[in-house]
Amino acid sequence: MPTAAIIGGGVIGSAWASRFLLHGWEVRFHDPAPNSETVLRKVLDKARRWVPEVYDQLPAEGALTVCGSIAHAVSFADWVQESTPERLEIKHSVLGEIQASCPAETIVASSTSGFMPSELQAGSSRPDRILVAHPYNPVYLLPIVEVVSSTVLAEETVQHAEALLSDIGMKPITLRAEIPAHVGDRLLEAVWREALWLIKDGVATTQQIDDIMTHGFGLRWAQKGLFETYRTAGGEAGMKHFLEQFGPCLQWPWTKLTDVPDLDEELIDRIVEQSDAQAAGRSVSELEEERDANLVAMLKALRQQDTAAGAFLNRLGASP
Amino acid sequence: MPTAAIIGGGVIGSAWASRFLLHGWEVRFHDPAPNSETVLRKVLDKARRWVPEVYDQLPAEGALTVCGSIAHAVSFADWVQESTPERLEIKHSVLGEIQASCPAETIVASSTSGFMPSELQAGSSRPDRILVAHPYNPVYLLPIVEVVSSTVLAEETVQHAEALLSDIGMKPITLRAEIPAHVGDRLLEAVWREALWLIKDGVATTQQIDDIMTHGFGLRWAQKGLFETYRTAGGEAGMKHFLEQFGPCLQWPWTKLTDVPDLDEELIDRIVEQSDAQAAGRSVSELEEERDANLVAMLKALRQQDTAAGAFLNRLGASP
Repeated sequence: MPTAAIIGGGVIGSAWASRFLLHGWEVRFHDPAPNSETVLRKVLDKARRWVPEVYDQLPAEGALTVCGSIAHAVSFADWVQESTPERLEIKHSVLGEIQASCPAETIVASSTSGFMPSELQAGSSRPDRILVAHPYNPVYLLPIVEVVSSTVLAEETVQHAEALLSDIGMKPITLRAEIPAHVGDRLLEAVWREALWLIKDGVATTQQIDDIMTHGFGLRWAQKGLFETYRTAGGEAGMKHFLEQFGPCLQWPWTKLTDVPDLDEELIDRIVEQSDAQAAGRSVSELEEERDANLVAMLKALRQQDTAAGAFLNRLGASP
Repeated sequence: MPTAAIIGGGVIGSAWASRFLLHGWEVRFHDPAPNSETVLRKVLDKARRWVPEVYDQLPAEGALTVCGSIAHAVSFADWVQESTPERLEIKHSVLGEIQASCPAETIVASSTSGFMPSELQAGSSRPDRILVAHPYNPVYLLPIVEVVSSTVLAEETVQHAEALLSDIGMKPITLRAEIPAHVGDRLLEAVWREALWLIKDGVATTQQIDDIMTHGFGLRWAQKGLFETYRTAGGEAGMKHFLEQFGPCLQWPWTKLTDVPDLDEELIDRIVEQSDAQAAGRSVSELEEERDANLVAMLKALRQQDTAAGAFLNRLGASP
């Protein structure tokens, strides 16, 4: 049985642990926070409920060991997934402690959404075993993981990481260059920034923005990405025609897009108030329940589609 | 039978015509382009194939009349939908011609993705009957429509427009303020701009960006928008906690987000090449077919979900 060490719990680390367990791996979990095991059990319960609905078959669940120290968790791990808070000095200290105790060849992957591999590798005696494997919430259901390496990593190390992540039902996307926040979070940040302006300027509410996404372009992007959508919109004249038409728009006076809004108390209060109204009394755990039920329903529906978009999802069902 | 006049065809105008027809309206269609009726018939075929799969029941299809002039098309219309090219002088000329012949109380809605109602109303003798109703492609399947009014419109005119758009299965989102590009396209433009940087800098390919969307946050946004997703991610500590944590990120050195990339020939060629590789020989009409089949499968799946996200979609099935 392969073994994954999960260092740092919370929503992300706990969901990594759940994904490994449900795909038959042994998991050794460490997080010093007093409530970390409670969070882990809660996330694992959700994963146990929903993941089997997406897969035709899953292997027998692996064994979970909660460990009192990093050394204890990583000593014979085949993969280490680090999901500690997003502060570089914490990451450096934890990565140092991990590499002091794990096998020399073990890959240590960080869930960081912002730091580049070279930043994480600084000061390490085995920098060529450290990379970024950045997942998306909920990690036990969404297949995507961004793999970011740096020049010190051998190609075979990256390939090994890709194979291993595929083994737990993920779709690794390996990026050619390291930049802060990788790819997905840069796109999300762009949307987030513009959305903040729309709220701040009173153009739309959080509910309206969410409705425009869920009844509009969100439905597009669940099955065709930005470029394939625009290729299609361009019609038979093709992508070049589309780009030449769309090009000038970039120069239009949509200046708010290129400013950074000030997330001050007034804006925070406005968003909190609108978001509360939108939730209409539903707790976060009810919202999570809705999200997971919806995701499972959509993934199952897309698996039935005999198209490129459905191909990977179909492979899910066929995996051991 | 209510009558809609569709002025300007193409992908958008033809899909508006199809939506009205399939919801039982009479449609009078005008577009001077020689191939406009061919495009209309093609889009209508797609709509006839897919729309009945989403609805439990639809009224008998309305009658379609192709008209040789704007005057002929609009003379007794209950609603006029203008979808001409995105140039203000064309819009002014067409809107003038429409209002010269349509009933005085008829609402004239523009599909414009960029112009504000006040810009469209300039020079009109009945500016209070002109508003924006901006849909998303494919218009016959995606429910969203942004309704943008201006200070010269009476509240009851806007309410009338909302009721009428709801009658053809749409979810109108009425915006409180007019800004260039409304709301959805501002969010899309933010993503588009950042995506262009990622391609230009060689960080990711069009295929990788699309994969990150379709296997990641696209699946989130098909059923929970930006704010509800973040509310959930914030955990029981709530939206305020999430915002306070996320706030500082806006100041991080992700400078590319605030620059406008130059869409020069080199970048256009790179995108075209990557997009061609991604399509792998599939024609635009095959891509459209995949898109529509996937959308229908997802909409049907979401309709089965007893959640807020499924509520509107369920109403689709119940509408006459």
